[in-house]
Amino acid sequence: MQLNYIEHIGIAVKDLTAAIKYYEEVLGLTCYSIEEVSEQQVKTAFFKIGQTKIELLESTSPEGPVGKFIEKKGEGIHHIAFAVNDIEAQLSDAASKSIQLIDHTPRKGAEGLDIAFLHPKSTFGVLTELCENKNVN
Amino acid sequence: MQLNYIEHIGIAVKDLTAAIKYYEEVLGLTCYSIEEVSEQQVKTAFFKIGQTKIELLESTSPEGPVGKFIEKKGEGIHHIAFAVNDIEAQLSDAASKSIQLIDHTPRKGAEGLDIAFLHPKSTFGVLTELCENKNVN
Repeated sequence: MQLNYIEHIGIAVKDLTAAIKYYEEVLGLTCYSIEEVSEQQVKTAFFKIGQTKIELLESTSPEGPVGKFIEKKGEGIHHIAFAVNDIEAQLSDAASKSIQLIDHTPRKGAEGLDIAFLHPKSTFGVLTELCENKNVN
Repeated sequence: MQLNYIEHIGIAVKDLTAAIKYYEEVLGLTCYSIEEVSEQQVKTAFFKIGQTKIELLESTSPEGPVGKFIEKKGEGIHHIAFAVNDIEAQLSDAASKSIQLIDHTPRKGAEGLDIAFLHPKSTFGVLTELCENKNVN
């Protein structure tokens, strides 16, 4: 695979409003976007720091993936997302190296990116997302 | 606080050698340094991707912080570290905003950086590290 940079870090929180307040008032970052991704059952808030974004994730349902994560592990860092070119080629390469794919083909994620997840069982416990911005490539 | 960029992401692994193999052979990154930080009871491996490093952490003792983390939560993303200037000023600012500090004064971490941790209880579950490279500022 070829990874360009860390596109974002996804962080699971129970209360998006309270967490945004912490990221802005304590850490000094600026929330530039709030977006609901209904397919993932999350409401997201985005911050930019250097080359990378921080994506806070509040579950809109206890049955959603972020709701289940918080129930099992508590609030905290949920996933890491790498910016790539040709996401389909990266997925093929991962699959050829016996990596378990959650998404065999890319789907639309927050901010209009094409995204796909690799299963943490085959990535040493790290839920790993690949992201491609097909609008700029 | 004023954060410059994400200096590194710390990832707890059980077997550093096996994890390095995955990061190199599957993700296509290059391990440029392996270092033991005896104070933290960890052996670390570093990779660079864009502006940020990935720091793999294998515990050298079940009683160390990374050993305890893996026992409780399993392998996975352990902490996020922000590059700052004037780490003492950032810690004072955090304390003034009622953030619980693990390190009230900076200490030496991997790669010769001055580091200090904020407690995840007051950072919405994210073990947060501040890092300053006093050699280059």
